Amino acid sequence: MAAMEKHTAAKHHHLAAMRHIAQARKVDSFLAMDVLAAANQREAAGEATYHLEVGQPGAPTPQSVRDAISATLADGRIGYTEAAGTKALRQRIARHYADQYGQSVDPARVMVTTGSSASFSLAFLLLCDPGDRIALPRPGYPAYRNIVRALGLEPVEIDLDPDSGWVLTPEALAKHHDDVPIRAVLIASPNNPTGTVMPPQAIEKLASYCKQAGIWYISDEIYHGLVFDGEQCCALSFDEDAIIINSFSKYYCMTGWRIGWMILPERLVRGAEALAQNLFICAPSLSQTAALAAFDATDELETIKAGYAANRQRLLQTQEVLGLAGGPPPDGAFYMYWPVQTLLRPGETSVALCDSLLAETGIAITPGNDFDPVHGDGFVRVSFAGSQETISEAADLFEHWAKRRSNRL
Amino acid sequence: MAAMEKHTAAKHHHLAAMRHIAQARKVDSFLAMDVLAAANQREAAGEATYHLEVGQPGAPTPQSVRDAISATLADGRIGYTEAAGTKALRQRIARHYADQYGQSVDPARVMVTTGSSASFSLAFLLLCDPGDRIALPRPGYPAYRNIVRALGLEPVEIDLDPDSGWVLTPEALAKHHDDVPIRAVLIASPNNPTGTVMPPQAIEKLASYCKQAGIWYISDEIYHGLVFDGEQCCALSFDEDAIIINSFSKYYCMTGWRIGWMILPERLVRGAEALAQNLFICAPSLSQTAALAAFDATDELETIKAGYAANRQRLLQTQEVLGLAGGPPPDGAFYMYWPVQTLLRPGETSVALCDSLLAETGIAITPGNDFDPVHGDGFVRVSFAGSQETISEAADLFEHWAKRRSNRL
Repeated sequence: MAAMEKHTAAKHHHLAAMRHIAQARKVDSFLAMDVLAAANQREAAGEATYHLEVGQPGAPTPQSVRDAISATLADGRIGYTEAAGTKALRQRIARHYADQYGQSVDPARVMVTTGSSASFSLAFLLLCDPGDRIALPRPGYPAYRNIVRALGLEPVEIDLDPDSGWVLTPEALAKHHDDVPIRAVLIASPNNPTGTVMPPQAIEKLASYCKQAGIWYISDEIYHGLVFDGEQCCALSFDEDAIIINSFSKYYCMTGWRIGWMILPERLVRGAEALAQNLFICAPSLSQTAALAAFDATDELETIKAGYAANRQRLLQTQEVLGLAGGPPPDGAFYMYWPVQTLLRPGETSVALCDSLLAETGIAITPGNDFDPVHGDGFVRVSFAGSQETISEAADLFEHWAKRRSNRL
Repeated sequence: MAAMEKHTAAKHHHLAAMRHIAQARKVDSFLAMDVLAAANQREAAGEATYHLEVGQPGAPTPQSVRDAISATLADGRIGYTEAAGTKALRQRIARHYADQYGQSVDPARVMVTTGSSASFSLAFLLLCDPGDRIALPRPGYPAYRNIVRALGLEPVEIDLDPDSGWVLTPEALAKHHDDVPIRAVLIASPNNPTGTVMPPQAIEKLASYCKQAGIWYISDEIYHGLVFDGEQCCALSFDEDAIIINSFSKYYCMTGWRIGWMILPERLVRGAEALAQNLFICAPSLSQTAALAAFDATDELETIKAGYAANRQRLLQTQEVLGLAGGPPPDGAFYMYWPVQTLLRPGETSVALCDSLLAETGIAITPGNDFDPVHGDGFVRVSFAGSQETISEAADLFEHWAKRRSNRL
């Protein structure tokens, strides 16, 4: 509404004025959640259903993690913690960087957040003034662009392609930065939905360009711990100013606990604390206690990971059999991003394909449009975070269905 | 940075560019948290400390609420829920509106959120385009203005005064709306820090003006259940479009669980769900299960409330003895907002007074500056959410200290 019209509306108090709904913030919901709802409906009706649509471990939270909260539950004083999280958890996370990556991180640089979701909002608000541009490789996690937009910032989506290994190059980023400056770039490795693990040299090259160009490097490392091939590398190795975002949701099987963390350069810490205090107060305190124990649940977690590795092998076989390889193999996370053009009927979309697959087989997978609204329509994302039984049955069924569809049976 | 300078910086790739930190988002941290940190330090050193600074129940979460999560903990599948919360909890919250206020609320209009904190962000983003103005009565909860600012909106603070009963009138709001339109007004009743319970007629008058003027009425009802005098009234009674924000943190003693809710007009629901999905995914799932049980913990909770009532009587006595009454008595919440000008030494601030009080007696209270940066310096907020023993000892000590200070001993 123009300022003039607004003013006029305000003056006519005798007429009930329309209450305005924000236009700028409109964001899309996830297609994955729509598929989940449809799959749940089918399941509730007693039909066989295979959940390969959501990015959520099928395994329960480790027993030792659940046990860790019993003393707090017995006491019952489940109160606010400091905005940045409990000292114990921040220290333990800092130690994880020494153990895992050989990186020395001051616990004061660790912010515990309500899932990685809160970390993204904090990072964008800390770095960006209204209207600033954030570069996001495409395909990617759909919430990135939606959070960026909801916060009044501009997502600059940069297309990746399978032939270049789904990896963002400094050259591609520079092309957009030279136009109007980019404030930050957000890189997920391993990536959702492609499973791509960015090689250390590629991270080094990109981080080095970002440093020169004054672009913040935000590294989403939520799928660390789930690397099956290739080298897992923390962006701090190449950029001491990198903002690292991670979570207990994936490797640690703690989605519903809503607990994550970020590592910030020292000069951003006070601002982040003040923002977190105001926006969130603190992360759930029981979840903080549980998360502390998650670092010692390695045996249980590595067993779960071995299950994912088996699932991955099974689905790589399906990919091979059906000719669905679309670039480098997915080295990490628990996703495959398959080009399904060969399975589409004339004029059919990925969304329609996923609908048919669910109706005809009970297998739920997510249309690529969620991750890439422009080029994602010929793709689907398949999650192998479920049990080996689920994935193996679903793989058999899917192969049969796909072959029949393309008249190979 | 001007666009021109930005562009130049971007071009000089051979020089490492400075990485920009957002200027617009800078928000203050809470003084209450600084006082808490100082009080905790004192306590850790083994000295007697009385926590009257934080807005957090001293009582544990009810036993029955803690027990409610045992089956989920045993199963271990603690996963994402729908973004708006579990069906069971949304239905139970809707029923609460029928039981408590005689209001019929469709469960589809209930959004479960990560504390009331997430509700505020959602409400502001749903209603406001960048730069929009939100009216906030002053004194008030400091996070309001900080969230508004962090999200790129403009807080319009409207001074209340004790002589008008700390209540916002349509006339005062209209004065600011006529200037440049106000998108929404946020009213907390019972209020933090004054404890004021807005009389139904005052809510009706304000809501009716807001409807005419096209201003959204956001009603923070987080201290509902904690009304000791006067009538507790839900804003839905006078405005079916009112956005109600509430939480399990205060009456239900569940601060650390980070669980709250909002009631939205039907036409805002889909937008809210999409925003919540992207910004938060969902509220912590164990907390949702626990919250469901909180509605049946009434006996335990009413006992805790009776303790607050006794604390309130004790502090009203202190207020009387020391002549600290500053307007109507605090009818709800668990706060008193005292004018302490008579206790200040020449040139002394409330912040310094609170420091001295803590150092000399171990009593922690919060300077008024937290709630009103302009006029709050002569005030302090005293929380009586602690145990009866704590408050009664602290009241004795405070009276003694204050009398000696003003040379009445």
